[in-house]
Parts: sequence; C-alpha cells; structure tokens
Amino acid sequence: MAEQSNERAALPVITTGFPTAGPTLEDVGEQAVIKAIRAAAPSDLNGDDAAVLIPSVPNSRVVAGTDMLVEGRHFTRETTTPYLLGRKAAVQNFADIEAMGARAIAVLMSVSASSDTPAAVVEELARGIGDMAGEYGCELVGGDVTGGGQLVVSVTAIGSLGGNREELRMSSARPGQRVVAHGHIGYSAAGLALLQAGVDIPAELEVLVQAHQVPQLVPGRGVVARAAGATAMTDNSDGLIRDIGMVADASGVGIDLSSVSITPDDTLRAAGKLLEVDPWQWVLTGGEDHTLIGTIDGSAPVGFRSIGTVTRKSGVRIDGEAPATTTGWESF
Amino acid sequence: MAEQSNERAALPVITTGFPTAGPTLEDVGEQAVIKAIRAAAPSDLNGDDAAVLIPSVPNSRVVAGTDMLVEGRHFTRETTTPYLLGRKAAVQNFADIEAMGARAIAVLMSVSASSDTPAAVVEELARGIGDMAGEYGCELVGGDVTGGGQLVVSVTAIGSLGGNREELRMSSARPGQRVVAHGHIGYSAAGLALLQAGVDIPAELEVLVQAHQVPQLVPGRGVVARAAGATAMTDNSDGLIRDIGMVADASGVGIDLSSVSITPDDTLRAAGKLLEVDPWQWVLTGGEDHTLIGTIDGSAPVGFRSIGTVTRKSGVRIDGEAPATTTGWESF
Repeated sequence: MAEQSNERAALPVITTGFPTAGPTLEDVGEQAVIKAIRAAAPSDLNGDDAAVLIPSVPNSRVVAGTDMLVEGRHFTRETTTPYLLGRKAAVQNFADIEAMGARAIAVLMSVSASSDTPAAVVEELARGIGDMAGEYGCELVGGDVTGGGQLVVSVTAIGSLGGNREELRMSSARPGQRVVAHGHIGYSAAGLALLQAGVDIPAELEVLVQAHQVPQLVPGRGVVARAAGATAMTDNSDGLIRDIGMVADASGVGIDLSSVSITPDDTLRAAGKLLEVDPWQWVLTGGEDHTLIGTIDGSAPVGFRSIGTVTRKSGVRIDGEAPATTTGWESF
Repeated sequence: MAEQSNERAALPVITTGFPTAGPTLEDVGEQAVIKAIRAAAPSDLNGDDAAVLIPSVPNSRVVAGTDMLVEGRHFTRETTTPYLLGRKAAVQNFADIEAMGARAIAVLMSVSASSDTPAAVVEELARGIGDMAGEYGCELVGGDVTGGGQLVVSVTAIGSLGGNREELRMSSARPGQRVVAHGHIGYSAAGLALLQAGVDIPAELEVLVQAHQVPQLVPGRGVVARAAGATAMTDNSDGLIRDIGMVADASGVGIDLSSVSITPDDTLRAAGKLLEVDPWQWVLTGGEDHTLIGTIDGSAPVGFRSIGTVTRKSGVRIDGEAPATTTGWESF
C-alpha cells in the first residue's frame, strides 16, 4: 500500500514461522492444552460435550460450513504463523457464511498435531480463531485436539440467517444482474508468490503477503448484500474464473466480467514485475482471497463494486471474450 | 470371522479393511469426489458455500460439537471399514448432542487423505455418516475434501435444543440424584482388544467388535432424559471413571457407582477369559462406548438403567471405595 512505502514506524511487519521450543503437547497433556485454548479464546459456551448457542432469533435459519487446512498443502510453517493461520481459518469459514447472506454466530476448531508439537502452536491457533471470531461478533465455542502426524486444522462456522428473504445461493444469478465484489482479487496469490520466491519484500508489497496470510473482509457484507437485494453469492476461494464459473453454471447463465474493473492494480503489477509473472494470472486463477462475489439487480451494495454483468449466454467471459485461463485450485 | 467358524447363516459378519484398488482421489478429481459424496449421502441442503438448515423451532437453541478422527490413532484400516468408520464418527458426535439433551439436526464431514487413496474410501465414509444421520433424522449437509498425508476425518454435529428446560450440563449433578446410563459400558474396549489380539473371534463375542466399530445408541435418549428431569449428562468417550469424574468435578459432587450395575456381563467375561484380561479394565477405563450417563431425581428414564448415586463427598467411588484404576484415553 502507498503509505507503507514511506517511513512510518508503526507499520505492520510480516511475520512467519512456528514456535519450535517450549513444552510440547505431550509434555502438558490434553487437559492443559484444552485449558490453554480456552484461555486464549474464552467463551462461556465452551467446555461441555457440545456448545449450546444463544437462542435463535424468531424466523431464523441455521447456516453451517466447514473447511480443513492441511500443513504442506494449505499452509507451511515458512509462510505464516499459528496465530495468523487461526485468523485465516476463521475468516475463510465466515466468508462462506457471509456468502449465504448470513451472519456468523459461532466457530469450532479441531486440531490434529504430532505430540512433539509445542503446545504454543495450538494455543496461538486458538487465539487467532478467537480474535477473528470476536471481530465477527461471535466466539470459539468448542472443538477437539488430538495427536496425529501432520498439523491438520478443521474449522466449522455456524451462522444465522434471519428473515424470510431467500439465502444467497450460487444458483440464483439472473440475466441482466450486476456482478459485484467485496474485497481484493488476486492479492492472496501474489502474496504467496512473494513468500515462496524468497525475495526481500518491499514495504509497498507487504499488503499482498498480509492478504495471503489473513484475507480481509468487513464483517456483515453478506448480510448487507442480501438486504440490498442480492440474489446469488459465493466467495473467491478457488480462483475467480472457476468460482464465477460455478455460479454461472449453477444458475444456468453466463457472466461477463469487465476487464477494467479487475485489471491488476499498481501493487499487483509491481509484484508481477518483481517476480516476472503476469499479474493477471493471480487475478484470474489465484483463489484464497475469499472476496465476496454476488449478483444483484440495480446498484452495488455498500462495500461492493461492480465487476461485470450476468448474461443469458452461458460461460464466463471478459469483455465478451473467453478468458485466457480457467484453471484454479485442485484439492488432489 | 467367528460365524464363519460355526454354521449360522444370518448372523452379522465382522467386516474390516479398506478398499485398496479402484480410481484414486487424484484420478477422479475433487468435483467427482464431491459428486460421489453427495450421491452416497444425498441432501438437498448440500452444495453451496454453506448449508442452510430448516427454520429453527421457536424458543430453540442451536447446539454444536465436533470430533476429529486420525488414522493410526483413533482407527486403523485393519479394525474397521470406511463405511463403519463413517457411522462411528457420526454417532459419537450425535452422542455429544444427545448428552446436552438435544436432538441432532445436521452433520458435516471434512476428510483429508493422500491423493492415492481410492475414492471409494471417501465415498463409503460419507455413506456411513449419511446412513447414521438418517437414523437420527438428519442429513450430511456439507463438508470439505482435501489432499493430505494420513487419513483424517473431522465431523461436526449440529443439534437443536427445544423449550425452556436447562440443557444437560456436566456441572448440573446434585447430591442425592440417581446416576443412570443408556448403552453398554466396556464393550468397545473389549471389541478393540479382540480385534488387536488377532484371535478367531467366537460368534457370541462379535457383539463386542460391533460395539467398537459402531457404538449403538437409540436416537433421542438424551431428549427423553431431559424431558424426564435429568439435569446432568455426558457420554462415556474417554473411560467411565474419567468421564464420571469430570461430571463429579464440574458439579462439585461425588459419584458412587454400584458394582453390581456395572459388573462385566457374560460376554465381557468370556472375552476377558479368552484374552486373559480382567474385563473390569474395559468397564472402568475403556471409553469409546459413547454410553449416555446422566443424573436425575427419581427413577431412570425409559432406556436408561441405574448405575449409582450422586454424593456430597467428592470423587468417584465404587460401592463406597476408590476404584482400582482411574486411567483413560490420552489424546497425546
């Protein structure tokens, strides 16, 4: 970002790395680990066989989604910290809740880790999840910790969908609607590329790394979009073209993106220049931004910008042409 | 196994082992795996960013719990099948929901597996979870599949707690109450011991192996107990003495078990004799039965039996004496 290229002292610093010392999970034992988790992410709702959440608002529906993060596949100890990983695991689940037009009301965390893992790793994970949950107005209410091989983190978010209006389904885009987005597109992939390149990262590109480590969304945007009349929504988790394509296919429509609205900004272009990569690749195929992308009649809701239109003709296009690439995240 | 050693035709057969052939996760790819999961455990609620559940009953609260199962730690390919593992993963989470006095309304499954895993493993897991969910009147509504090293299964159950009566907390046992149990105690540990011993399992002991592979509970017992006036409940997951001790500690009371009510039955004694193990060990420290254990004023609710009383004096006793052993499951 621009202000990171000048000399303010309080700038955020990129942090990476996992604790390698201190008492291990085996040293402290399950009960102490659970106690540390509950201290790091306090909730009165935690601590029994299951968590009992606050009474439902009348006429509301429960929403639930889950994601599993595996070390070496979704993260490495070299590119994040347990705290940031916890924040990311939480926000990507909250993005799924928001993408239905709902608000998050609770989050659960299960962790499997080898018994020689420093207990601080799990504690920091929980603190990250709990802090992000706090930003979304909810708490880490339960979970499980267990021995294992690789570090595996499973997070489940539970949300509440109030009122009678339809949820924001991927299948509900209609021809003629505007396509709108909340959040950066391509930043996460660019940030990961910077981390993996092992280069000195200029201050003005730190924002990309931060977007990779913890995608930034303003809580409540999905609720706002639903209230404003959006009908379809998803989040950019596997790559823009792929995720938009899923909405188009599910809705039996096409989507035409406006190149001007998604063209790589100065920051992405600077990163592309540094790494000798075409930044359009990050925009079109990157994923993990968890940008909320919806369709709506009329103007973009507060916090969203227009990036295209829904068409009768099926498929995803950019300025009416087929995109150069349609690849994205592959789970296997 | 055992009934293969005598001549009854209609007995249940112990089945173990994982598919080792057929198209792998990598062969078929993420989308086809998800499609197979949805075919194995159909639900109209699945398939978007998050699942939107049925409208909440007025005055109800949402309940959520989660467990993570790791290959080599919670199960092995030699002692179960993916289908049975799915059933077990579901029922142990439903037991946590029941232990609050709630009923299950949905379940989610995340799976991490190496990319050379036969896709049938994940499909069968989902079928097991979906079938068990059906027995509890709900569906597998969402999840995640991803590459990884070991097979890791994370299951989250969501429940609904109706009415104004308090949930069944571990901290709500009161002196003078009856301690009641629904389900076998010690069977799971005995079944595991039989499987691990590699012996020919006599037909009359197959019930122990089945109890290990898939604990049996009658759905709705937690709701019944709450309606009948139970105040505290948990499930026997880590070992009877340990789990009862957690209820006693949380409630600031003691629990005195009646040895007659938990004494190993003929089946457990036969297994003990075969393996030269004291079957009391399975009863007191075994865990994984997911037996519902509650406390109530007055008589045992339908489906429950009395196993002891709540005392003012803290600690867990059997016929007034300290138990010989207090160990149980250790996560690390």
